[in-house]
Parts: sequence; structure tokens; C-alpha cells
Amino acid sequence: MDHDIAWPGSVRPGGRTARVRESVLEVAGDLLADRGFAHLDLAEVAARAGVGKTTVYRRWRTPAGLVGDLLVDMAEQSLPRADTGSLIEDLMANARLVAKTLTDGRQSNLFRAVIAAATCDDATAAALRTFYDTRLTEWTPCVEAAVVRGEVPAGTDARAVLSAVSAPLYYRLLASGDPIDDEAAEQAAKAAAVAAAAGTFVTKQAQRA
Amino acid sequence: MDHDIAWPGSVRPGGRTARVRESVLEVAGDLLADRGFAHLDLAEVAARAGVGKTTVYRRWRTPAGLVGDLLVDMAEQSLPRADTGSLIEDLMANARLVAKTLTDGRQSNLFRAVIAAATCDDATAAALRTFYDTRLTEWTPCVEAAVVRGEVPAGTDARAVLSAVSAPLYYRLLASGDPIDDEAAEQAAKAAAVAAAAGTFVTKQAQRA
Repeated sequence: MDHDIAWPGSVRPGGRTARVRESVLEVAGDLLADRGFAHLDLAEVAARAGVGKTTVYRRWRTPAGLVGDLLVDMAEQSLPRADTGSLIEDLMANARLVAKTLTDGRQSNLFRAVIAAATCDDATAAALRTFYDTRLTEWTPCVEAAVVRGEVPAGTDARAVLSAVSAPLYYRLLASGDPIDDEAAEQAAKAAAVAAAAGTFVTKQAQRA
Repeated sequence: MDHDIAWPGSVRPGGRTARVRESVLEVAGDLLADRGFAHLDLAEVAARAGVGKTTVYRRWRTPAGLVGDLLVDMAEQSLPRADTGSLIEDLMANARLVAKTLTDGRQSNLFRAVIAAATCDDATAAALRTFYDTRLTEWTPCVEAAVVRGEVPAGTDARAVLSAVSAPLYYRLLASGDPIDDEAAEQAAKAAAVAAAAGTFVTKQAQRA
């Protein structure tokens, strides 16, 4: 059936479009997690999602286009930032969220597949950077509030603090293979908070100002 | 010419074997950096290195076997640890070394290719973990000496401290795309040193002891 043709009595296009996107992205995520980017085939995604091939090719064009949209969706679906009133607690919540994602079977495989794809595909690399931009920006107010509360100095680079929380967990996933457990998450959050309080993440630009 | 056959007057086998390995690994590294793991072909490596195909297949068997040996060689060729007498200076040297590697065109591509390969190939993942094991172990005495000097508390997990230095630089390379510059290297080293001094990397096990 060609889902591109609206039929009498069908739901409004907006709703259908959203449902098509949801099905396609779910299948794309499953295939990526299972077999990686190199084997992501738009025709197979269309068939498994029960969506017309034409729709998938017209809307997403390439595997990289599909992964890019999946990353947009993942950023949109991600949980909102914490707001506990304390930087260390906010960073702990962030670290636990990242650790949970990177230890979930499907999500962990999905991230590894997308990060691997980004190493050899510029469009995917750009989409991945946008994903992390969105997530880092979502959590930026935690650091800004800590500046207002006087927990960390003015001029602290929120993006650097939040990257410092995620980075050791990604390093375990992609490089050292060390376990991503609760102790690792706690250490990552505490190290970032302690260093931030000591002024380590005040940018050189802010120091000069 | 079949290099498997020793000819009269040729150098002793040990020297030739070492030279063959060096040529093969250099070509393998070039090809990986240029085109990634998926396109690494043993026959092409043999041809470009001017080495018999049989030698290459017999010694390295698979592309993953070749990458594994390349990582062993990279770990062996890596610079020795710093020994400045101060933890922050040692970590700064470590961070600058990692940053230099990850911003060098060939090395950066090579690491990205190998990390990407490790996400979908278990043998490469194991070889990559061994590489980081070797490097982290090489630098462990810097943290142990800092414990002796009283710069960081006893029970500090050297591997966690050193991972904390590398991690933000790898996160920039693979995830956020933020620049890996001198400020990033300095921040990574300082954040790890400050957190280590505050006891953040004392393991729970050591805390209980």
C-alpha cells in the first residue's frame, strides 16, 4: 500500500506523517543497534516499517539523512535537565542518565553505531554534533544556576563542565572498556563539580575580562 | 618477488621479519587512516608493502588481526611517561601528548577508524582495550608518585585519574566536535589533578579499607 496517498477517512496528514516518522525511526534505530550503519538500507527500513519505499527515499534520501533525523528525534525525546538546587546533585543526575543510556543494550549499540558512522560520514558527524549541542544546551542552566548560587565562579564554561561529566563514561564505552557503573557515574559527576568549584572551567577569555 | 623465501646473502630472518612487519603496519595504518577499517584488505596491504600475500595472510590472518598488531606496535612506539616531580605537570604532559595525537591528521583518522572498527568487531575491541591498558599502565607511576609525595590521597585510582585526562579530549574527537586545543588539554589535566587532590578518585574499596 502506498502510504503517500491520503485516503478518505484517514487521519489528518500531520498525524499520519508523525506516525510514519515514528515507525521509520524505530525500525532504523533497531537496525542500527543490531547491525550498524554500514548495513542500514532505506528499502529494508521501509519494508519493515510498513511504509512506502518512495516515502522513505523522498523524505530521508540517504542512510545518513535517516540517522540525522533519528538523532534529532533522540534529542527531542531525551529527558529534561535536573533542577535539584545543587550542582553536584544535578551533575549526578546527568551522569546517571548518561550511564543508563550507555549501558542499555539497544541504546548503547545505537550510540556506538552512530559514533562509528560519524567517523567516516560528514553528514552523520554534523548530526551527532547537533545532538550533543542540544543535550549540552538543555543542561546548561544547571551550571548557570550554580554560578548564581555562588557554587562555581562566574565565567565557568557550562559546556566544558557538562562535557567533563559525560566524557569519562564515553571513554569507557569506546576506549578503555572499563565498566560504566554507579561508581563511575558518581566519580565523573564529583570530579566535574570539584574542578568547576575550583575555577578550572573558567574560560581564558573570561579570566582576561 | 616472494619475500617468504630467504635468499643467499639476505639479512638474518629476525631483521627481515621486523622490517616486513614495519612495512606492513605502516601501509595498514595509512590505509586505515585514509579509508577506514571496512576497506582494509590484506592483499592490498601486501601489494603496497611489497610483501608476499602469503606472508601477510599467514601472519595476520584477518584485517582485525592486522589492526590488533598495529595497536600493539602503536603502544610500543608511544612516548614514555613524564616524570616532572609534580602531578599537575605530569598530567599536563599527558594531556598535551593525547591532544597532539588526536589533532595529527593521520593519527587522528587512524584512532577514529580503529575506534569505529572496535564498535562492531570484538577482536579489534579487545586489541583497543589492550592498547589503552598499556598506555594507562605506562603512566600509572605518575599518580603513585603523587600519592607518595602527598599530593593526592592513598587509595587514589591511577587509572581513573589518567582516564579523566584523556576522556574529555576523546569526547571532543568523537562526540561534541569541540576543538582539541591547548586550552582543552590544560583544562583536562587541571580538572583531573584538582579532583584527584580532593580525593574524588579514591575507590570505594579503598575508602572502606
